[in-house]
Amino acid sequence: MSLRDCPRLITLEGGEGAGKSSALDALARHLRDAGAEVVTTREPGGTPLAEQIRGLLLDTHHEPPAPETELLLMFAARAQHVRETVLPALERGAWVISDRFTDASFAYQGAARGGDAGFIAELERRVVGIRPGLTLLLDVPVAVGLERARRRGETDRIEGEQEAFFERVRASYLARARAEPDRFRVIDATRPMNAVAAEAVAHLQRQIEMTASDIAHG
Amino acid sequence: MSLRDCPRLITLEGGEGAGKSSALDALARHLRDAGAEVVTTREPGGTPLAEQIRGLLLDTHHEPPAPETELLLMFAARAQHVRETVLPALERGAWVISDRFTDASFAYQGAARGGDAGFIAELERRVVGIRPGLTLLLDVPVAVGLERARRRGETDRIEGEQEAFFERVRASYLARARAEPDRFRVIDATRPMNAVAAEAVAHLQRQIEMTASDIAHG
Repeated sequence: MSLRDCPRLITLEGGEGAGKSSALDALARHLRDAGAEVVTTREPGGTPLAEQIRGLLLDTHHEPPAPETELLLMFAARAQHVRETVLPALERGAWVISDRFTDASFAYQGAARGGDAGFIAELERRVVGIRPGLTLLLDVPVAVGLERARRRGETDRIEGEQEAFFERVRASYLARARAEPDRFRVIDATRPMNAVAAEAVAHLQRQIEMTASDIAHG
Repeated sequence: MSLRDCPRLITLEGGEGAGKSSALDALARHLRDAGAEVVTTREPGGTPLAEQIRGLLLDTHHEPPAPETELLLMFAARAQHVRETVLPALERGAWVISDRFTDASFAYQGAARGGDAGFIAELERRVVGIRPGLTLLLDVPVAVGLERARRRGETDRIEGEQEAFFERVRASYLARARAEPDRFRVIDATRPMNAVAAEAVAHLQRQIEMTASDIAHG
């Protein structure tokens, strides 16, 4: 079982306060302006059931999930999201932009929480089966991102972690980007939001052109 | 990673309408009468978070989970149940009686739903890590069990499956019992409830004696 590359699946990754939401809006607008169908979605979530799993993962009203529980809930939500939302959209020719995808589990449940990367890779092969064509990593130093997230208001269970946790998340994302330079683009997200969005759109535009040319050449 | 056998963990397995609840009550009473601490629990469930996962698995108000989603939700709930409820009880010397455990995933998500048994075994090793000392399989023909379950009233999502689904569940349970004759006892649950409970208690009594003798001999 190997992973199938999906050129029209674009994912946004990054820590807290990296500005993924505004970049996502700009990417979706760019595709719609070009006449493409776009589905914007997020993880954990993206279907009614997966959003309920998200609620269990982020709320603080029951006992915290064990690391193994958190990992399996993330992949349960992702399995549902892929089958109900992502694949049906890709199969009818739409583009899909997801705020986080499997890379986030390697960073959060793997590197930051101590989960076994080999097991996470096996879950990816067995229950996800697909890989994005382009992953935009919005990178900011942890202190900057956390300050931005705190200014937005109440923090959820995962956002309440210590700074060292987010340093491991950031290091893991950057290592994954170095390991897969063809798929990842790292964007310096300390800059103003419109500059970040413009760079994200430029990378997307190249992906649109490459995808069109792949189709043209067979 | 191999599975650790837990002599004081007793599990009840069987299809719909097999009479697991009344057998569980009789087992718990027998242990309490003998002066033992007993924790009775169930799967999916057994902690506040795991009970919420159970709710997602059984209710019919959102889209049905994909088979992979169902499997991972079951093991997410089980990972939590083992760490929060089962292991703490066993570690303080209590007995634990669970209405269903990992065998149910091999029967329902594996044999009946088509999930890969090798992957389920890997989830068992990686996120469960323990195996019951005694598993009582309450066996009834599918038609008898379903008729009993229907008489009890409204059926949940899994109870609403077709008869062929439950035939695969039953065949899988019986095959597992044949493969692990030291751990499994198969009880003919077509008989009256008090006869079923008495046989379950007799098997438990032998397990109590064996466990005491294991402790006495080191």
